[in-house]
Amino acid sequence: MPNPTAAILIIGDEILTGRTREGNAWFLAGELAKAGITLRQIRVIGDEHATITTAVRELSGAHDHLFTSGGIGPTHDDITADAVAEAFGQPIGVRADAHAILAAHYAARGAEFTEARMRMARIPEGATLIENPVSAAPGFSIGNCHVMAGVPDVFQAMVAGLLPRLGQGAPLVTHSLRVLRPESAAADALRALAGAHPEVSMGSYPFITETGQFGTNLVVRGTDPAAVGAAFAALRATFPEGK
Amino acid sequence: MPNPTAAILIIGDEILTGRTREGNAWFLAGELAKAGITLRQIRVIGDEHATITTAVRELSGAHDHLFTSGGIGPTHDDITADAVAEAFGQPIGVRADAHAILAAHYAARGAEFTEARMRMARIPEGATLIENPVSAAPGFSIGNCHVMAGVPDVFQAMVAGLLPRLGQGAPLVTHSLRVLRPESAAADALRALAGAHPEVSMGSYPFITETGQFGTNLVVRGTDPAAVGAAFAALRATFPEGK
Repeated sequence: MPNPTAAILIIGDEILTGRTREGNAWFLAGELAKAGITLRQIRVIGDEHATITTAVRELSGAHDHLFTSGGIGPTHDDITADAVAEAFGQPIGVRADAHAILAAHYAARGAEFTEARMRMARIPEGATLIENPVSAAPGFSIGNCHVMAGVPDVFQAMVAGLLPRLGQGAPLVTHSLRVLRPESAAADALRALAGAHPEVSMGSYPFITETGQFGTNLVVRGTDPAAVGAAFAALRATFPEGK
Repeated sequence: MPNPTAAILIIGDEILTGRTREGNAWFLAGELAKAGITLRQIRVIGDEHATITTAVRELSGAHDHLFTSGGIGPTHDDITADAVAEAFGQPIGVRADAHAILAAHYAARGAEFTEARMRMARIPEGATLIENPVSAAPGFSIGNCHVMAGVPDVFQAMVAGLLPRLGQGAPLVTHSLRVLRPESAAADALRALAGAHPEVSMGSYPFITETGQFGTNLVVRGTDPAAVGAAFAALRATFPEGK
Protein backbone atom coordinates (compact mmCIF):
# COMPACT_ATOMS: atom_id res chain seq x y z
CA MET A 1 0.00 0.00 0.00
CA PRO A 2 1.41 3.38 -0.85
CA ASN A 3 2.12 5.80 1.99
CA PRO A 4 -0.51 8.45 2.83
CA THR A 5 0.15 11.86 1.24
CA ALA A 6 0.18 15.28 2.87
CA ALA A 7 0.47 19.02 2.31
CA ILE A 8 1.47 21.75 4.76
CA LEU A 9 -0.14 25.20 4.68
CA ILE A 10 1.70 27.97 6.54
CA ILE A 11 -0.44 31.03 7.19
CA GLY A 12 1.20 34.33 8.03
CA ASP A 13 2.22 37.68 6.53
CA GLU A 14 5.39 37.55 8.65
CA ILE A 15 6.82 34.82 6.38
CA LEU A 16 5.85 36.54 3.11
CA THR A 17 7.41 39.85 4.17
CA GLY A 18 10.70 38.16 5.08
CA ARG A 19 10.39 39.03 8.77
CA THR A 20 10.40 35.40 9.96
CA ARG A 21 12.32 32.43 8.64
CA GLU A 22 9.87 29.56 8.34
CA GLY A 23 10.77 26.60 10.53
CA ASN A 24 7.54 24.73 11.28
CA ALA A 25 7.26 23.16 7.82
CA TRP A 26 10.90 22.07 8.07
CA PHE A 27 10.25 20.44 11.46
CA LEU A 28 7.05 18.72 10.32
CA ALA A 29 8.64 17.55 7.04
CA GLY A 30 11.16 15.58 9.09
CA GLU A 31 8.47 14.13 11.37
CA LEU A 32 6.29 13.11 8.41
CA ALA A 33 9.25 11.33 6.75
CA LYS A 34 9.74 9.33 9.97
CA ALA A 35 6.00 8.58 10.19
CA GLY A 36 5.81 7.31 6.61
CA ILE A 37 3.56 10.11 5.37
CA THR A 38 4.69 11.49 2.00
CA LEU A 39 4.81 15.29 1.92
CA ARG A 40 3.94 16.55 -1.56
CA GLN A 41 3.64 20.30 -1.09
CA ILE A 42 4.34 23.17 1.31
CA ARG A 43 2.50 26.42 0.71
CA VAL A 44 2.84 29.77 2.49
CA ILE A 45 0.03 32.35 2.19
CA GLY A 46 -0.97 35.57 3.92
CA ASP A 47 -3.60 36.34 6.57
CA GLU A 48 -6.55 36.68 4.16
CA HIS A 49 -9.82 34.84 4.70
CA ALA A 50 -10.64 33.97 1.06
CA THR A 51 -7.05 32.96 0.30
CA ILE A 52 -7.02 30.58 3.29
CA THR A 53 -10.42 29.06 2.44
CA THR A 54 -9.42 28.43 -1.19
CA ALA A 55 -6.07 26.90 -0.26
CA VAL A 56 -7.60 24.66 2.43
CA ARG A 57 -10.21 23.34 -0.02
CA GLU A 58 -7.66 22.68 -2.74
CA LEU A 59 -4.94 21.09 -0.58
CA SER A 60 -7.24 19.01 1.65
CA GLY A 61 -9.00 17.73 -1.48
CA ALA A 62 -5.75 16.66 -3.16
CA HIS A 63 -3.99 14.95 -0.22
CA ASP A 64 -4.75 12.46 2.53
CA HIS A 65 -3.79 15.05 5.17
CA LEU A 66 -3.44 18.81 5.33
CA PHE A 67 -1.52 20.37 8.23
CA THR A 68 -1.83 24.11 8.85
CA SER A 69 0.28 26.39 11.04
CA GLY A 70 -0.55 29.93 12.18
CA GLY A 71 -3.43 32.30 12.68
CA ILE A 72 -5.26 30.70 15.62
CA GLY A 73 -4.36 33.23 18.33
CA PRO A 74 -6.46 35.93 20.03
CA THR A 75 -5.85 38.93 17.72
CA HIS A 76 -7.74 40.49 14.81
CA ASP A 77 -5.38 38.90 12.23
CA ASP A 78 -6.02 35.37 13.60
CA ILE A 79 -8.64 34.21 11.11
CA THR A 80 -7.57 30.67 10.29
CA ALA A 81 -10.27 28.85 12.32
CA ASP A 82 -13.09 30.79 10.65
CA ALA A 83 -11.62 30.30 7.16
CA VAL A 84 -11.15 26.55 7.72
CA ALA A 85 -14.72 26.22 9.05
CA GLU A 86 -15.97 27.86 5.86
CA ALA A 87 -13.82 25.58 3.70
CA PHE A 88 -15.51 22.56 5.32
CA GLY A 89 -18.97 24.15 5.30
CA GLN A 90 -19.26 24.01 9.11
CA PRO A 91 -20.52 26.65 11.54
CA ILE A 92 -18.06 27.97 14.12
CA GLY A 93 -18.48 29.45 17.59
CA VAL A 94 -17.06 29.32 21.10
CA ARG A 95 -17.21 25.63 21.95
CA ALA A 96 -17.78 24.34 25.48
CA ASP A 97 -14.80 21.93 25.56
CA ALA A 98 -12.31 24.54 24.36
CA HIS A 99 -13.91 27.17 26.62
CA ALA A 100 -13.44 24.89 29.64
CA ILE A 101 -9.77 24.27 28.88
CA LEU A 102 -9.02 27.99 28.55
CA ALA A 103 -11.17 28.99 31.56
CA ALA A 104 -9.24 26.53 33.75
CA HIS A 105 -5.91 27.75 32.35
CA TYR A 106 -6.59 31.43 33.15
CA ALA A 107 -8.23 30.63 36.50
CA ALA A 108 -5.11 28.71 37.57
CA ARG A 109 -3.02 31.81 36.77
CA GLY A 110 -5.43 34.29 38.37
CA ALA A 111 -5.84 35.94 34.95
CA GLU A 112 -9.02 37.27 33.43
CA PHE A 113 -10.69 35.21 30.68
CA THR A 114 -11.26 38.18 28.38
CA GLU A 115 -13.23 38.50 25.14
CA ALA A 116 -9.96 38.38 23.14
CA ARG A 117 -8.90 35.18 24.90
CA MET A 118 -12.33 33.65 24.27
CA ARG A 119 -11.59 34.00 20.56
CA MET A 120 -9.19 31.06 20.96
CA ALA A 121 -12.15 28.85 21.98
CA ARG A 122 -13.75 29.28 18.55
CA ILE A 123 -13.75 25.77 17.08
CA PRO A 124 -15.73 24.51 14.04
CA GLU A 125 -18.56 22.09 14.69
CA GLY A 126 -17.52 18.45 14.32
CA ALA A 127 -13.83 19.17 14.89
CA THR A 128 -11.63 17.19 17.32
CA LEU A 129 -9.36 19.21 19.61
CA ILE A 130 -5.56 18.97 19.40
CA GLU A 131 -4.00 19.41 22.83
CA ASN A 132 -1.70 22.37 23.56
CA PRO A 133 0.42 21.47 26.61
CA VAL A 134 2.40 24.73 26.30
CA SER A 135 -0.19 27.52 26.41
CA ALA A 136 -3.57 25.72 26.57
CA ALA A 137 -5.34 27.19 23.50
CA PRO A 138 -6.13 24.06 21.48
CA GLY A 139 -5.72 23.29 17.79
CA PHE A 140 -8.23 21.07 16.01
CA SER A 141 -8.71 18.45 13.29
CA ILE A 142 -11.69 18.76 10.95
CA GLY A 143 -12.00 16.19 8.20
CA ASN A 144 -8.42 15.58 7.05
CA CYS A 145 -7.28 19.08 8.01
CA HIS A 146 -5.17 19.57 11.16
CA VAL A 147 -5.06 23.18 12.38
CA MET A 148 -2.15 24.09 14.63
CA ALA A 149 -0.46 27.15 16.11
CA GLY A 150 2.37 29.12 14.53
CA VAL A 151 4.53 29.57 17.66
CA PRO A 152 7.22 26.89 17.15
CA ASP A 153 7.14 25.48 20.71
CA VAL A 154 3.37 25.10 20.55
CA PHE A 155 3.37 23.76 16.99
CA GLN A 156 5.89 21.06 17.88
CA ALA A 157 3.96 20.01 20.98
CA MET A 158 0.75 19.77 18.94
CA VAL A 159 2.46 17.67 16.25
CA ALA A 160 3.74 15.31 18.95
CA GLY A 161 0.19 14.79 20.20
CA LEU A 162 -1.40 14.53 16.76
CA LEU A 163 0.87 12.29 14.69
CA PRO A 164 0.38 9.05 16.67
CA ARG A 165 -3.38 9.37 15.98
CA LEU A 166 -2.90 9.32 12.20
CA GLY A 167 -2.52 6.25 10.00
CA GLN A 168 1.16 5.95 9.26
CA GLY A 169 3.12 4.34 6.43
CA ALA A 170 6.60 3.00 5.84
CA PRO A 171 9.22 5.46 7.14
CA LEU A 172 11.46 7.15 4.61
CA VAL A 173 15.01 5.78 4.80
CA THR A 174 17.75 8.19 3.72
CA HIS A 175 21.49 7.63 3.28
CA SER A 176 23.84 10.29 2.02
CA LEU A 177 27.44 10.46 0.81
CA ARG A 178 29.53 13.64 0.66
CA VAL A 179 32.01 13.88 -2.23
CA LEU A 180 34.41 16.73 -2.99
CA ARG A 181 33.74 17.00 -6.69
CA PRO A 182 31.36 19.27 -8.57
CA GLU A 183 27.89 17.93 -9.26
CA SER A 184 28.64 17.87 -12.98
CA ALA A 185 31.51 15.43 -12.38
CA ALA A 186 29.14 13.04 -10.58
CA ALA A 187 26.17 13.37 -12.92
CA ASP A 188 26.86 10.56 -15.41
CA ALA A 189 27.60 7.90 -12.78
CA LEU A 190 24.60 9.02 -10.73
CA ARG A 191 22.26 8.85 -13.71
CA ALA A 192 23.41 5.26 -14.41
CA LEU A 193 22.88 4.29 -10.76
CA ALA A 194 19.42 5.89 -10.69
CA GLY A 195 18.48 3.92 -13.81
CA ALA A 196 19.71 0.67 -12.23
CA HIS A 197 17.80 1.29 -8.95
CA PRO A 198 14.36 2.56 -9.99
CA GLU A 199 12.78 1.59 -6.66
CA VAL A 200 14.65 4.36 -4.82
CA SER A 201 15.09 8.04 -5.56
CA MET A 202 18.57 9.50 -5.95
CA GLY A 203 19.28 13.18 -5.49
CA SER A 204 22.41 15.31 -5.70
CA TYR A 205 22.90 18.55 -3.77
CA PRO A 206 25.88 20.70 -4.70
CA PHE A 207 27.64 22.86 -2.16
CA ILE A 208 30.60 25.21 -2.03
CA THR A 209 33.05 24.86 0.86
CA GLU A 210 34.39 27.86 2.77
CA THR A 211 37.61 27.57 0.77
CA GLY A 212 35.67 27.73 -2.50
CA GLN A 213 35.83 24.04 -3.41
CA PHE A 214 32.82 22.52 -5.19
CA GLY A 215 31.27 19.42 -3.61
CA THR A 216 28.11 17.36 -3.80
CA ASN A 217 25.95 15.46 -1.36
CA LEU A 218 24.58 12.32 -3.01
CA VAL A 219 21.37 11.07 -1.40
CA VAL A 220 19.45 7.80 -1.70
CA ARG A 221 15.86 7.75 -0.41
CA GLY A 222 13.14 5.14 -0.30
CA THR A 223 10.68 3.31 1.91
CA ASP A 224 12.14 -0.19 1.30
CA PRO A 225 15.20 -0.43 3.57
CA ALA A 226 16.72 -3.34 1.59
CA ALA A 227 16.41 -1.46 -1.71
CA VAL A 228 17.88 1.70 -0.18
CA GLY A 229 20.73 -0.34 1.30
CA ALA A 230 21.54 -2.01 -2.02
CA ALA A 231 21.45 1.27 -3.93
CA PHE A 232 23.63 2.97 -1.31
CA ALA A 233 26.18 0.14 -1.46
CA ALA A 234 26.37 0.64 -5.23
CA LEU A 235 26.75 4.40 -4.70
CA ARG A 236 29.63 3.89 -2.24
CA ALA A 237 31.36 1.53 -4.67
CA THR A 238 31.02 4.13 -7.45
CA PHE A 239 32.32 7.00 -5.27
CA PRO A 240 34.87 5.27 -3.01
CA GLU A 241 36.26 8.63 -1.82
CA GLY A 242 32.83 9.60 -0.41
CA LYS A 243 32.26 10.14 3.28
CA MET B 1 -0.35 52.35 -8.59
CA PRO B 2 -0.36 49.15 -6.53
CA ASN B 3 2.92 47.28 -6.17
CA PRO B 4 3.65 44.37 -8.54
CA THR B 5 2.80 40.94 -7.08
CA ALA B 6 4.95 37.82 -6.96
CA ALA B 7 5.09 34.15 -6.05
CA ILE B 8 8.12 31.97 -5.27
CA LEU B 9 8.28 28.33 -6.36
CA ILE B 10 10.92 26.18 -4.63
CA ILE B 11 11.62 22.91 -6.44
CA GLY B 12 13.32 20.06 -4.62
CA ASP B 13 12.64 16.76 -2.84
CA GLU B 14 15.30 17.73 -0.27
CA ILE B 15 12.95 20.31 1.25
CA LEU B 16 9.87 18.04 1.30
CA THR B 17 11.77 15.22 2.99
CA GLY B 18 13.04 17.52 5.74
CA ARG B 19 16.69 17.12 4.72
CA THR B 20 17.23 20.81 3.99
CA ARG B 21 15.83 23.86 5.72
CA GLU B 22 14.57 26.21 3.03
CA GLY B 23 16.37 29.55 3.03
CA ASN B 24 16.15 30.94 -0.50
CA ALA B 25 12.49 31.97 -0.21
CA TRP B 26 13.28 33.67 3.11
CA PHE B 27 16.14 35.62 1.51
CA LEU B 28 14.11 36.58 -1.56
CA ALA B 29 11.07 37.56 0.55
CA GLY B 30 13.23 40.19 2.27
CA GLU B 31 14.65 41.46 -1.04
CA LEU B 32 11.17 41.70 -2.60
CA ALA B 33 9.88 43.71 0.38
CA LYS B 34 12.75 46.18 -0.14
CA ALA B 35 12.08 46.31 -3.90
CA GLY B 36 8.38 47.04 -3.44
CA ILE B 37 7.20 43.75 -4.97
CA THR B 38 4.40 42.17 -2.93
CA LEU B 39 4.98 38.46 -2.27
CA ARG B 40 1.66 36.61 -2.17
CA GLN B 41 2.66 32.95 -2.06
CA ILE B 42 5.60 30.60 -1.54
CA ARG B 43 5.19 27.03 -2.76
CA VAL B 44 7.53 24.05 -2.39
CA ILE B 45 7.11 21.04 -4.68
CA GLY B 46 9.12 17.93 -5.61
CA ASP B 47 11.27 17.12 -8.65
CA GLU B 48 8.41 15.97 -10.90
CA HIS B 49 7.95 17.30 -14.43
CA ALA B 50 4.14 17.52 -14.52
CA THR B 51 3.95 19.01 -11.02
CA ILE B 52 6.43 21.74 -11.97
CA THR B 53 4.69 22.54 -15.26
CA THR B 54 1.28 22.83 -13.57
CA ALA B 55 2.58 25.01 -10.74
CA VAL B 56 4.50 27.31 -13.12
CA ARG B 57 1.40 27.83 -15.27
CA GLU B 58 -0.82 28.54 -12.27
CA LEU B 59 1.54 30.83 -10.35
CA SER B 60 2.88 32.78 -13.36
CA GLY B 61 -0.70 33.33 -14.51
CA ALA B 62 -1.85 34.67 -11.16
CA HIS B 63 1.07 37.03 -10.34
CA ASP B 64 3.17 39.71 -12.03
CA HIS B 65 6.33 37.69 -11.35
CA LEU B 66 7.19 34.09 -10.54
CA PHE B 67 10.63 33.29 -9.14
CA THR B 68 11.80 29.67 -9.08
CA SER B 69 14.71 28.08 -7.22
CA GLY B 70 16.24 24.66 -7.82
CA GLY B 71 16.52 21.92 -10.41
CA ILE B 72 18.73 23.58 -13.05
CA GLY B 73 21.95 21.62 -12.44
CA PRO B 74 23.60 18.86 -14.48
CA THR B 75 22.01 15.72 -12.98
CA HIS B 76 19.09 13.49 -13.96
CA ASP B 77 16.82 15.09 -11.31
CA ASP B 78 17.41 18.61 -12.70
CA ILE B 79 14.28 18.96 -14.82
CA THR B 80 13.11 22.50 -14.07
CA ALA B 81 14.23 24.10 -17.38
CA ASP B 82 12.37 21.50 -19.46
CA ALA B 83 9.22 21.76 -17.32
CA VAL B 84 9.22 25.58 -17.49
CA ALA B 85 9.73 25.48 -21.28
CA GLU B 86 6.67 23.25 -21.56
CA ALA B 87 4.63 25.54 -19.29
CA PHE B 88 5.36 28.43 -21.69
CA GLY B 89 4.91 26.28 -24.83
CA GLN B 90 8.50 26.90 -25.98
CA PRO B 91 11.03 24.43 -27.41
CA ILE B 92 14.24 23.89 -25.42
CA GLY B 93 17.75 22.83 -26.40
CA VAL B 94 21.42 23.68 -25.84
CA ARG B 95 21.59 27.36 -26.69
CA ALA B 96 24.67 29.01 -28.22
CA ASP B 97 24.95 31.87 -25.69
CA ALA B 98 24.74 29.58 -22.64
CA HIS B 99 27.02 27.04 -24.35
CA ALA B 100 29.65 29.75 -24.91
CA ILE B 101 29.55 30.87 -21.25
CA LEU B 102 30.02 27.32 -19.96
CA ALA B 103 32.66 26.39 -22.58
CA ALA B 104 34.74 29.43 -21.55
CA HIS B 105 34.26 28.59 -17.85
CA TYR B 106 35.53 25.01 -18.19
CA ALA B 107 38.30 25.96 -20.66
CA ALA B 108 39.65 28.51 -18.15
CA ARG B 109 39.84 25.72 -15.55
CA GLY B 110 41.32 23.10 -17.92
CA ALA B 111 38.20 20.97 -17.28
CA GLU B 112 36.30 18.94 -19.83
CA PHE B 113 32.95 20.30 -21.09
CA THR B 114 31.12 16.99 -20.73
CA GLU B 115 27.66 15.91 -21.85
CA ALA B 116 26.36 16.30 -18.28
CA ARG B 117 27.72 19.85 -18.06
CA MET B 118 26.18 20.69 -21.44
CA ARG B 119 22.81 19.98 -19.86
CA MET B 120 23.19 23.29 -18.01
CA ALA B 121 23.20 25.10 -21.38
CA ARG B 122 19.64 23.93 -22.11
CA ILE B 123 17.60 27.17 -22.24
CA PRO B 124 14.07 27.65 -23.61
CA GLU B 125 13.72 29.62 -26.84
CA GLY B 126 12.96 33.31 -26.24
CA ALA B 127 14.38 33.30 -22.68
CA THR B 128 16.83 35.94 -21.40
CA LEU B 129 19.83 34.64 -19.43
CA ILE B 130 20.36 35.47 -15.74
CA GLU B 131 24.06 35.77 -14.97
CA ASN B 132 25.72 33.37 -12.51
CA PRO B 133 28.95 35.00 -11.27
CA VAL B 134 29.60 32.09 -8.85
CA SER B 135 29.65 28.96 -11.02
CA ALA B 136 28.84 30.18 -14.57
CA ALA B 137 25.76 28.03 -15.40
CA PRO B 138 23.10 30.69 -16.08
CA GLY B 139 19.50 31.01 -14.97
CA PHE B 140 16.91 32.53 -17.28
CA SER B 141 13.75 34.64 -17.47
CA ILE B 142 10.94 33.53 -19.77
CA GLY B 143 7.78 35.62 -19.82
CA ASN B 144 7.29 36.65 -16.19
CA CYS B 145 9.06 33.55 -14.80
CA HIS B 146 12.59 33.86 -13.44
CA VAL B 147 14.38 30.50 -13.12
CA MET B 148 17.30 30.40 -10.69
CA ALA B 149 19.59 27.89 -8.99
CA GLY B 150 18.97 26.21 -5.63
CA VAL B 151 22.49 26.57 -4.19
CA PRO B 152 22.11 29.57 -1.85
CA ASP B 153 25.30 31.41 -2.92
CA VAL B 154 24.32 31.13 -6.57
CA PHE B 155 20.66 31.97 -5.94
CA GLN B 156 21.57 35.14 -4.07
CA ALA B 157 24.01 36.26 -6.78
CA MET B 158 21.34 35.68 -9.44
CA VAL B 159 18.74 37.66 -7.47
CA ALA B 160 21.22 40.54 -7.16
CA GLY B 161 21.62 40.61 -10.94
CA LEU B 162 17.95 40.14 -11.74
CA LEU B 163 16.02 42.44 -9.37
CA PRO B 164 17.31 45.79 -10.73
CA ARG B 165 15.93 44.75 -14.16
CA LEU B 166 12.38 44.38 -12.85
CA GLY B 167 9.82 47.14 -12.40
CA GLN B 168 9.78 47.96 -8.72
CA GLY B 169 7.18 49.48 -6.41
CA ALA B 170 7.09 51.27 -3.09
CA PRO B 171 9.30 49.48 -0.55
CA LEU B 172 7.59 47.87 2.42
CA VAL B 173 8.24 49.82 5.62
CA THR B 174 8.15 47.77 8.83
CA HIS B 175 8.39 48.88 12.47
CA SER B 176 8.08 46.52 15.39
CA LEU B 177 7.68 46.78 19.14
CA ARG B 178 8.50 44.03 21.62
CA VAL B 179 6.26 43.81 24.70
CA LEU B 180 6.49 41.33 27.57
CA ARG B 181 2.82 40.46 27.80
CA PRO B 182 0.91 37.60 26.24
CA GLU B 183 -0.67 38.23 22.84
CA SER B 184 -4.13 37.90 24.40
CA ALA B 185 -3.37 40.86 26.69
CA ALA B 186 -2.52 43.04 23.70
CA ALA B 187 -5.33 41.91 21.42
CA ASP B 188 -8.07 44.44 22.26
CA ALA B 189 -5.83 47.50 22.01
CA LEU B 190 -4.28 46.19 18.82
CA ARG B 191 -7.65 45.59 17.22
CA ALA B 192 -8.70 49.18 17.98
CA LEU B 193 -5.44 50.52 16.52
CA ALA B 194 -5.81 48.38 13.38
CA GLY B 195 -9.33 49.74 12.92
CA ALA B 196 -8.09 53.32 13.30
CA HIS B 197 -5.22 52.82 10.81
CA PRO B 198 -6.69 50.88 7.89
CA GLU B 199 -3.96 52.01 5.47
CA VAL B 200 -1.34 49.86 7.25
CA SER B 201 -1.34 46.24 8.34
CA MET B 202 -0.78 45.34 11.98
CA GLY B 203 0.42 41.92 13.06
CA SER B 204 1.21 40.33 16.40
CA TYR B 205 3.70 37.52 16.87
CA PRO B 206 3.77 35.80 20.24
CA PHE B 207 6.96 34.31 21.66
CA ILE B 208 8.06 32.52 24.80
CA THR B 209 11.29 33.65 26.47
CA GLU B 210 13.91 31.22 27.74
CA THR B 211 12.59 31.77 31.26
CA GLY B 212 9.06 30.85 30.13
CA GLN B 213 7.59 34.36 29.99
CA PHE B 214 5.03 35.10 27.29
CA GLY B 215 5.72 38.09 25.04
CA THR B 216 4.53 39.55 21.75
CA ASN B 217 6.14 41.38 18.86
CA LEU B 218 3.74 43.99 17.50
CA VAL B 219 4.44 44.88 13.89
CA VAL B 220 3.20 47.72 11.64
CA ARG B 221 3.73 47.35 7.88
CA GLY B 222 2.83 49.43 4.86
CA THR B 223 4.19 51.11 1.76
CA ASP B 224 3.32 54.69 2.82
CA PRO B 225 6.08 55.75 5.26
CA ALA B 226 4.00 58.58 6.76
CA ALA B 227 1.05 56.25 7.46
CA VAL B 228 3.35 53.62 8.98
CA GLY B 229 5.01 56.29 11.11
CA ALA B 230 1.68 57.61 12.42
CA ALA B 231 0.37 54.12 13.20
CA PHE B 232 3.61 53.19 14.94
CA ALA B 233 3.52 56.36 17.06
CA ALA B 234 0.01 55.40 18.16
CA LEU B 235 1.21 51.87 18.91
CA ARG B 236 4.08 53.18 21.06
CA ALA B 237 1.70 55.44 22.96
CA THR B 238 -0.60 52.47 23.62
CA PHE B 239 2.22 50.18 24.76
CA PRO B 240 4.65 52.59 26.48
CA GLU B 241 6.62 49.71 28.00
CA GLY B 242 7.47 48.37 24.50
CA LYS B 243 11.01 48.27 23.15
